Amino acid sequence: MPSNELCPENCRGYRAAIITVSDSVYRREREDASGKVISEILKTSGFQEKNYLVLPDEQTLLENEMKKICDENLADIILTTGGTGFSQRDRTPEATIAIAERLVPGIPEAMRLHSMSITKRAMLSRSAAAIRGKTLIVNLPGSPKAAKENLQSIIEEIKHGLDILTGKENECGT
Amino acid sequence: MPSNELCPENCRGYRAAIITVSDSVYRREREDASGKVISEILKTSGFQEKNYLVLPDEQTLLENEMKKICDENLADIILTTGGTGFSQRDRTPEATIAIAERLVPGIPEAMRLHSMSITKRAMLSRSAAAIRGKTLIVNLPGSPKAAKENLQSIIEEIKHGLDILTGKENECGT
Amino acid sequence: MPSNELCPENCRGYRAAIITVSDSVYRREREDASGKVISEILKTSGFQEKNYLVLPDEQTLLENEMKKICDENLADIILTTGGTGFSQRDRTPEATIAIAERLVPGIPEAMRLHSMSITKRAMLSRSAAAIRGKTLIVNLPGSPKAAKENLQSIIEEIKHGLDILTGKENECGT
Repeated sequence: MPSNELCPENCRGYRAAIITVSDSVYRREREDASGKVISEILKTSGFQEKNYLVLPDEQTLLENEMKKICDENLADIILTTGGTGFSQRDRTPEATIAIAERLVPGIPEAMRLHSMSITKRAMLSRSAAAIRGKTLIVNLPGSPKAAKENLQSIIEEIKHGLDILTGKENECGT
Repeated sequence: MPSNELCPENCRGYRAAIITVSDSVYRREREDASGKVISEILKTSGFQEKNYLVLPDEQTLLENEMKKICDENLADIILTTGGTGFSQRDRTPEATIAIAERLVPGIPEAMRLHSMSITKRAMLSRSAAAIRGKTLIVNLPGSPKAAKENLQSIIEEIKHGLDILTGKENECGT
Repeated sequence: MPSNELCPENCRGYRAAIITVSDSVYRREREDASGKVISEILKTSGFQEKNYLVLPDEQTLLENEMKKICDENLADIILTTGGTGFSQRDRTPEATIAIAERLVPGIPEAMRLHSMSITKRAMLSRSAAAIRGKTLIVNLPGSPKAAKENLQSIIEEIKHGLDILTGKENECGT
């Protein structure tokens, strides 16, 4: 593993994109409290926020925006918030799975496991996580409280995942 | 959220369909103990039992019956029992996944997590849960004991899921 | 359930194939420590080791070898090790899912749950488990320590799964 001295890119932290998926935030009927909470956690954890988008609950639109970020390598991680529940228009996991090259089931399992220790309703979160190219995508719930709990329960492990995914660390060498 | 006075449909509880998937029950070689256990739990929890079917372990038949219930909106929830194991003819999760519009992985995770605290063999349950239209489908195991344990571990949370799915409660407003 | 006297096949234990998926082991740059650990656990648990293969991280190659073992019924269980992580060439779960007839999500859930009690990084394991014909496939991680922990947490339950899958025990009768 390269030392920080030799790896200024790593020092600056990984590049993150936040995508808030919400009809009401998109129509400016509601503030994006979850996006802000995620942004703060990322800053504290040493990530660089590179993109911030607010989209309506439209699966194809979300797919296209995520594809672009992955395929042009504009971020190392995409964190979505919203669209993971049971509402008719909730399609964030479907968009994520549709563009996934590889699924990462352990991340949503770990988030739900942690969140279920707080409220059993967390079992209703349909969150997915996936890899496309060199970008990891993780779906967070739409409520600020749940988004925070979920993200905090995985953020340190995600950094290690990104070390491997981006090639900063050779998995076999550890 | 509408009060009970204004929402008589909600007062009567959600409409449930039970589908027992078992060659031996279908051939009347065995009583449907699991179907009965599920029926009792539903009654206690305020659901209306609208359909009760016994089918053999035939994937296409099961798919067609579930599709009909979802697409004609004959029930808010379908609970299957049986066909979730390792037998060659166990195909209930495959039927469920095949007709799913959206998967709900947290429900089977929560059932297995609870059930594994009783017996580690619960890891062998291949149960799935899915949404098609406005109907939630949940696979329960075939044994009465396991079906009961599984259903009791999720039933309160499922009610909340149905509130959102059927539009009785606006997720963002809660 | 047949007694041991009447079931010599069962006495000899189930037939296992080990497939180590690793570019570096394939190129003989590294010893196959994980393959050895798995082999020892299998022996202790009464399995017969029938096949042992070392493959590079090539999805199609892995798919073809696993298909052959399943379709010619050369083993009751295939245990892979390696290729479950975030490296660009890690495609073992994708190969497994691609040839799966039926998925067994509870096995990787149980492995990650157990492994996360040791290190939270276990959430990054993308392991899958699946059934094709009469053969169960389980992906284990690449590190010897994690492969051991994962396999030991499921091996007794897997034997029961194989009893059902191979028809040695009738699930309904138990």
